[in-house]
Amino acid sequence: MATGTLRAFVCSFSIIFLIQLNAFSCQQFSIYLQQPSDCGAESYFDISSLSCVKCGPNQVNSKSGLICECQTGFRVLVSNGASITCQQCPDANQGVTQDGYGCISCPGSVGVNGKCQCPEGSVLVERDGNGNPLNEARCEPCSATEPAFSAPDTTGKRCVRCEDSFINSSQSCVCGTSSVLAGGMCFPSNSLPTTVASNVIFGQLTLSLPSAWFLSFMYSSAAACLLFSNRTACQSLGNMCVMNMHSSSTINNDACGLYNTIYRATAAQGSSQDISYWRTNLPWLYYGEQLGLASRVLQNEPLPVGFSFKGAQKNTNIELRAAVYSVRGEFMRWESVGGGNLQLCPDTLTSQQSAFTFGTAYKQSCVLTVSELLIGYPEPVFYDVFLVIQKAQGDKRLLAVPLRNVNQQFNGQFTNQGSNMNNWYLTRRLMLVDTLSGRENSLSSSPRAIRVASNIKIGFQLVPNTQKGLVYPPLMTVTYSDILVTDPSTQTVTVSFSLEYTMDQDEARIKTDIALGVLGGVAVVHSLLKTASWKRRIASPLIDLQTIMKFLVFYAGNLANVFFIITVGTGLYWLIFFKAQLFVSVLLPLPAQEERFVVYVGCAFALKTVQFLHKLFVQLSVDIFFIDWERPRGKSSKHVEGSGEAKNQASPVSIWRTYFVANEWNEIQTVRKINPTFQVITVLFFLEVVGFSNLALRDPSSNLRRAPEAYTPSYSLILRYGVASAMWLCIGLMQMIFFTVFHERFVEDKIRQFVDLCSISNISVLLLSHRCFGYYIHGRSVHGHADTNMDEMNSNLKREADNLCGQRGLLPNSDTQTFQISITNRLRTQYDRIIEPINRRNGPSRLVDASANQCEQSTKAYHTMNRFLGSVIDHAHREMDYIVKDKLLFERFIGMEFIEPLDKSIFYNDDSHSFADVLFYGNEAVLLIFDTLFFCVVDLGSQNFILAAVLTYIQQLVFRLIRNGMGRRNLASKTLVDKRFLI
Amino acid sequence: MATGTLRAFVCSFSIIFLIQLNAFSCQQFSIYLQQPSDCGAESYFDISSLSCVKCGPNQVNSKSGLICECQTGFRVLVSNGASITCQQCPDANQGVTQDGYGCISCPGSVGVNGKCQCPEGSVLVERDGNGNPLNEARCEPCSATEPAFSAPDTTGKRCVRCEDSFINSSQSCVCGTSSVLAGGMCFPSNSLPTTVASNVIFGQLTLSLPSAWFLSFMYSSAAACLLFSNRTACQSLGNMCVMNMHSSSTINNDACGLYNTIYRATAAQGSSQDISYWRTNLPWLYYGEQLGLASRVLQNEPLPVGFSFKGAQKNTNIELRAAVYSVRGEFMRWESVGGGNLQLCPDTLTSQQSAFTFGTAYKQSCVLTVSELLIGYPEPVFYDVFLVIQKAQGDKRLLAVPLRNVNQQFNGQFTNQGSNMNNWYLTRRLMLVDTLSGRENSLSSSPRAIRVASNIKIGFQLVPNTQKGLVYPPLMTVTYSDILVTDPSTQTVTVSFSLEYTMDQDEARIKTDIALGVLGGVAVVHSLLKTASWKRRIASPLIDLQTIMKFLVFYAGNLANVFFIITVGTGLYWLIFFKAQLFVSVLLPLPAQEERFVVYVGCAFALKTVQFLHKLFVQLSVDIFFIDWERPRGKSSKHVEGSGEAKNQASPVSIWRTYFVANEWNEIQTVRKINPTFQVITVLFFLEVVGFSNLALRDPSSNLRRAPEAYTPSYSLILRYGVASAMWLCIGLMQMIFFTVFHERFVEDKIRQFVDLCSISNISVLLLSHRCFGYYIHGRSVHGHADTNMDEMNSNLKREADNLCGQRGLLPNSDTQTFQISITNRLRTQYDRIIEPINRRNGPSRLVDASANQCEQSTKAYHTMNRFLGSVIDHAHREMDYIVKDKLLFERFIGMEFIEPLDKSIFYNDDSHSFADVLFYGNEAVLLIFDTLFFCVVDLGSQNFILAAVLTYIQQLVFRLIRNGMGRRNLASKTLVDKRFLI
Repeated sequence: MATGTLRAFVCSFSIIFLIQLNAFSCQQFSIYLQQPSDCGAESYFDISSLSCVKCGPNQVNSKSGLICECQTGFRVLVSNGASITCQQCPDANQGVTQDGYGCISCPGSVGVNGKCQCPEGSVLVERDGNGNPLNEARCEPCSATEPAFSAPDTTGKRCVRCEDSFINSSQSCVCGTSSVLAGGMCFPSNSLPTTVASNVIFGQLTLSLPSAWFLSFMYSSAAACLLFSNRTACQSLGNMCVMNMHSSSTINNDACGLYNTIYRATAAQGSSQDISYWRTNLPWLYYGEQLGLASRVLQNEPLPVGFSFKGAQKNTNIELRAAVYSVRGEFMRWESVGGGNLQLCPDTLTSQQSAFTFGTAYKQSCVLTVSELLIGYPEPVFYDVFLVIQKAQGDKRLLAVPLRNVNQQFNGQFTNQGSNMNNWYLTRRLMLVDTLSGRENSLSSSPRAIRVASNIKIGFQLVPNTQKGLVYPPLMTVTYSDILVTDPSTQTVTVSFSLEYTMDQDEARIKTDIALGVLGGVAVVHSLLKTASWKRRIASPLIDLQTIMKFLVFYAGNLANVFFIITVGTGLYWLIFFKAQLFVSVLLPLPAQEERFVVYVGCAFALKTVQFLHKLFVQLSVDIFFIDWERPRGKSSKHVEGSGEAKNQASPVSIWRTYFVANEWNEIQTVRKINPTFQVITVLFFLEVVGFSNLALRDPSSNLRRAPEAYTPSYSLILRYGVASAMWLCIGLMQMIFFTVFHERFVEDKIRQFVDLCSISNISVLLLSHRCFGYYIHGRSVHGHADTNMDEMNSNLKREADNLCGQRGLLPNSDTQTFQISITNRLRTQYDRIIEPINRRNGPSRLVDASANQCEQSTKAYHTMNRFLGSVIDHAHREMDYIVKDKLLFERFIGMEFIEPLDKSIFYNDDSHSFADVLFYGNEAVLLIFDTLFFCVVDLGSQNFILAAVLTYIQQLVFRLIRNGMGRRNLASKTLVDKRFLI
Repeated sequence: MATGTLRAFVCSFSIIFLIQLNAFSCQQFSIYLQQPSDCGAESYFDISSLSCVKCGPNQVNSKSGLICECQTGFRVLVSNGASITCQQCPDANQGVTQDGYGCISCPGSVGVNGKCQCPEGSVLVERDGNGNPLNEARCEPCSATEPAFSAPDTTGKRCVRCEDSFINSSQSCVCGTSSVLAGGMCFPSNSLPTTVASNVIFGQLTLSLPSAWFLSFMYSSAAACLLFSNRTACQSLGNMCVMNMHSSSTINNDACGLYNTIYRATAAQGSSQDISYWRTNLPWLYYGEQLGLASRVLQNEPLPVGFSFKGAQKNTNIELRAAVYSVRGEFMRWESVGGGNLQLCPDTLTSQQSAFTFGTAYKQSCVLTVSELLIGYPEPVFYDVFLVIQKAQGDKRLLAVPLRNVNQQFNGQFTNQGSNMNNWYLTRRLMLVDTLSGRENSLSSSPRAIRVASNIKIGFQLVPNTQKGLVYPPLMTVTYSDILVTDPSTQTVTVSFSLEYTMDQDEARIKTDIALGVLGGVAVVHSLLKTASWKRRIASPLIDLQTIMKFLVFYAGNLANVFFIITVGTGLYWLIFFKAQLFVSVLLPLPAQEERFVVYVGCAFALKTVQFLHKLFVQLSVDIFFIDWERPRGKSSKHVEGSGEAKNQASPVSIWRTYFVANEWNEIQTVRKINPTFQVITVLFFLEVVGFSNLALRDPSSNLRRAPEAYTPSYSLILRYGVASAMWLCIGLMQMIFFTVFHERFVEDKIRQFVDLCSISNISVLLLSHRCFGYYIHGRSVHGHADTNMDEMNSNLKREADNLCGQRGLLPNSDTQTFQISITNRLRTQYDRIIEPINRRNGPSRLVDASANQCEQSTKAYHTMNRFLGSVIDHAHREMDYIVKDKLLFERFIGMEFIEPLDKSIFYNDDSHSFADVLFYGNEAVLLIFDTLFFCVVDLGSQNFILAAVLTYIQQLVFRLIRNGMGRRNLASKTLVDKRFLI
């Protein structure tokens, strides 16, 4: 309410004080929309006020609707530029003059427009030669015979010389009875069929329409072409053949039939430009009908110039030029192809131009409405496309680009649809949108059906083994779509324009197959070796189902490596050879040709997963025991005091060192040689932020940054894989180098730390990864005791730092603390016997044992085991003795021990901490490759590096949690350290 | 060589066996490029063979170059359609007939084209009325007087009625002496100036050119408009004024001067369409000259329909329609704006159409070459732009869109260039490219300078406080660029087209300022409180420089929170209110208006960094001591054995429990309530993979997925910040809920574990974060001893699980193990005295101490401290006693203790483990906000979420390493636990 009042007040204010502004402040500057067509017959559209204004009396609006005219039977009396006054002509028999300003009596009838009409062959005369008006109009007949040869002109106002064809055929301006009048010309009788097949056939709609255009001009074009060698007529006939999809058959009275008839009839005239298929005066439409001609045309001889991606001789420019003809056969101009003449989809100029950069896989596609096409292409335009070849400055030649019209029929067969090049019939001349031939009744009616070049593809093929970037002549493939026009504004058609570059991929495929075969063989041998090694380590000579399973698992791992090597090699090969080549010598495989590669990557990933899961399972079931060397200190007091009580008071050995060591072991389970999260983030950074992902685009550019407005081609899966895996491996390698060379040496080495900790805490670690094979970390303190207070610990450390005590090794005066061990069957059996109560704890409960009892039993077993293993290491058991030796180089190399531990166990010196093989740390290669493959597989599926990074991170997280959690459980059950201390 | 031979062989083979293919196999289907213009005068361009062909004898090529004509003085003898034969006309005085087929003797002279010529006012007659050729051509004068009023037509072949203006002014077809002949019309003497300023002024080039167009048509247009009310002429004159940039001054003989003269002279005719500035018959160019009119036009009354982003009444369609006029003043058509008519840059249709979606900040810009413009725009086209307003079905009105021509001059002043709306002069009618007015000598010459509408902007302004999406009428701003044409193919011009949506941001700014003020005040109070609390905790009453520094640091932290709250609030406000609004009630700030916001974010980040670094520093210098409650077991033996030796043999208390606890403390230093890497990765996933980043685009759509071909508007920094921070906080919160509710309860709670570990290992932890304030974790074992073997540990654990022993709390029968402590100055002094040797170890070495001695001393200090603190906890020191009490709710709330510990220290029960405040764990809020701000600041700078994620990850990594490394060093130095055990 208040606003209303206020506004009213403002209004009044404006009106009172700003009279000159009276119209603006309270009204919008708005008008009603009126079109010239909206005004009725008695109004006109005033272009100044953009509204309909009533005409004066006796006036009607003109055809354009923009001015008023006198109505029929009225003449203009006064005209002052802005308006006219009309007056009725007095006599009913009188007509209005042609200029509209006078009345005149007509010699004959008055037409519907109120003006005089003359019979055919006569002209209307209203003024004499000096422009003086006559009282009565005259109809003067034009003299048709020699020497006048005259006929009324198109306006019917003067007699002018008639068309040559009339004069030539009948020596007058009348077409004789033996001649044929067609298309405004007079043809003498001739060899052409007199009735033509003027239907246009829309094959996809199975629709045959009478075409007004064909009906009007087909015969006359053919006749004028044949008889008068009229070049425009010949082109026009050729265009009709193109509108008929170049389809020819035994029928000789359709457009292509007439073309072929004339082609044969004019053989004597010779050919244009020394090209035998290009008949003088005729357009060049066909490349002959011999079978196999296509492959000879396309693959016989390469273009004389090579393409080069880089360097001083860089040449990536594909210059196409087209001779453009109107549907009437007129030559319009030479046009440079690009900038949208063959590309129906609107796009930015930069983007459209980048189609013509050699090596850029260009594809543009969009959906157009039929109404757009009807408005934009009232008549078809025809293109004869040539490729510009510039050998040297100034030496420019145009190579005709052959066309493969997929819709072409030859005797009713779609010969061009198959992929067998030998069956193709190549043609020339292309049109984009034909809205003309589908007009049924008249040329101005709207078409019932239209035809659109919905798919244009230009393909280049590289000459095999070229080093100079030579390619065969390009082939243009066009597919037309027929559309029955029902509702133009909602009907749509998808059109696309693409350039494709191919090379023969057979050689690459063969090479890959050979590599696969060779490496697969190596994989078999290596797997057999590993299986043999495994058999020895579990001390089982039988070949049973488990052995075969193990072999398969090993084989899976090796085969995964083979696939990985081959796929990474392939990816890098294409990346380097395609992107870095100077002269073009390789071109990327097409998306369809990448399938095999994707299958390989999938195999690599699947097999690697098997290997990884197996590793994980093995690691989660490893046997481990911490041997505590510490002996109670208070032992001496036992002798002195009473036997019963004193024994109880003997100060126990603290379990905390074991806890500490177990806790540390628990923590290093998932330590890796790289930081996996950093790996993921860095790879993502280089790919997406620095822009390495741009290297995977299907174009010759090797720039990491691209202008935002530049055209972005599609990605090549092989290149994506190549870039991603290379990036992943590079960064992984760099991280490993950083960690091993710098970090572990100067900052922190978790594995070394653990070994040191064992030594300080007086605890040895026995790891059995197989039944009779494992690792031993010797941790006996050089100070005898470790279970002591801070003073002593510090002084121990100090003594050791000052080299005042012995060395830490198992053997006297040696430093070697870590060993691979092959133990005898006897030792293992004893081990199993002692460990049994512990393992039983995890098994199903039995009636015979109370649970408390069981707990005591396993503690007892722990102490027994501790004593037993301690005595074994101390050589206290004769029958379970061991020797220490170095491993042979070859043994190391193939990962297998040659000597079977029959009598004595064997401890192999192992300075390289290979006990890390039961941790993530020692399996970095498997983990890294698994991560790489995981990342790449997700990316191949989604084409999204970010998603791949996220999922890889989550995968790492999940497996780390599993490894940590299950590993902790295994550790707790095997070493009897309560899980609560493994934090 | 071999290849050559082989190819030669193939050639021969083809030649011999495939005679019919003779031409193809060894030659390319190539031709030379020839243009019609390349053929000389005596050749024509054969459109069939696309080459130049020599004409017959006596022939030259025609103007188009496509056919041959007889040369001057020759007639066509025979024409058979394809070729002609020419014959010289026998007599030198004879000319060739107009149709070219005959020779005829001329009455007057023979023209240069070899045909007869007649004097002006006469027509050439070569045939009689019936078309019979005359022997001698006649020149018939046209009768100019009544009643004939005739003059030769444009071809000079007939006499026709002459132009009305001649007849009206002189009653004949001759323009009288008192009249003015201009532009083909005859004007009676009138009020217009007879000489017109026909120069066009290119202001930016300071160039004034004589314009052929103005010279030819300016006077005639003006006169026809004024005298005959010729509407086309009026439009044409208006167009010239537009070409002159609407500039008007006191000069009245330039285009706009003439327009204004006529405008004033025709005041009596009234106005069109009830719009007072739109004079009948004239185009509407100006909105009056009153100062301040612009703001009244633009901001007086909103449009009658509102815009709505969503729902049933969704209305985001901006429909513009333009009346299009040719430069000659003809009305061409009504055009829908869009699809490229005002958008000079080529682009896809979808993209161009999205300009006209209300709320989409559209900007399209590109570089065009001058030659493109010259070819594409031979003549300017003029647009009168209207906005279509559809209130109801069928009720369509057009609102005139005012134009602000930045180049317009009013009396030599560029009034429209300033931002003060009151000085603007609004106009109408727009042109895009003017290549016409710069033509100097003739209309067909190439222009010396062109003018391009290089910047077109349509701006909408929201009505303040609207809830219905009401906007004021749009304003179109156009800036023209003048270009001197020197080298069209290399010269370029940057053009852009944009739509801008604004609203009054003052209210939002004021609200922000108020919030800032209020929260800033709260921050001051809170900082004062924290400073007071801190003063109490360090037990210092003095206000010194350090106090002020501390206050500033606290203030920085609080202020950072204030800025963070305000910026996140603002971001969310815009995100929610802009994207989710049904009817438009808010519009985004323009990029220029976002600066203030960015400054706020910067402040928040800088201040948060100060707070974070301070926290880090405080955490890295905290005092910590592990109190070992374990007493030696072997103590009893001392009494029995010899005094000297027995003492040495007393079994020492193992330090390993302390090591274990210290190691665990070291590990939980950087534990957080969330997984920070998971946080980064998840945020990145939601933003970039799920597509939340699309919400930050400046358009009304709230879809997460966008079609790849759709137009992508620019990003709003505020929305980016809003989305990113909301995402970050949401995921952070969800993680915290997951970890506190699920993970810590069911999987693992590191903090709880540590407290339990203390209890099991019989070790208490004393943390002093301030001089007289800190935390105490009571870890005295309920079993008396913890330094024992596995049997006893297991049975202890079992007993506790079975509730067979006392409770773990400090007070009897209580469970509370964790306390906040306020200690007395006396206790602290004693603490410092004991700790001194330890601290000295880290200080500069002194001459008095040998290092070995020092080590011993600090071990001694360790034992002393252990005993001293143990006795304090055991209430053994009367003068350093303590009491245990609950903290008041209000004390908890404001984080300050009310009671000063003067006599007795105070232990406050603290079940919430607030000792985690000295760890990352207890400062999750600070860390999360710091990370959020870091992420957002990087993103605001780079507009790249991936980079932000990568850098945030690295930041987290670096600070975690610093916190771990330095924290470990601090821990080692304060607790005397060797660094080598903190692994």
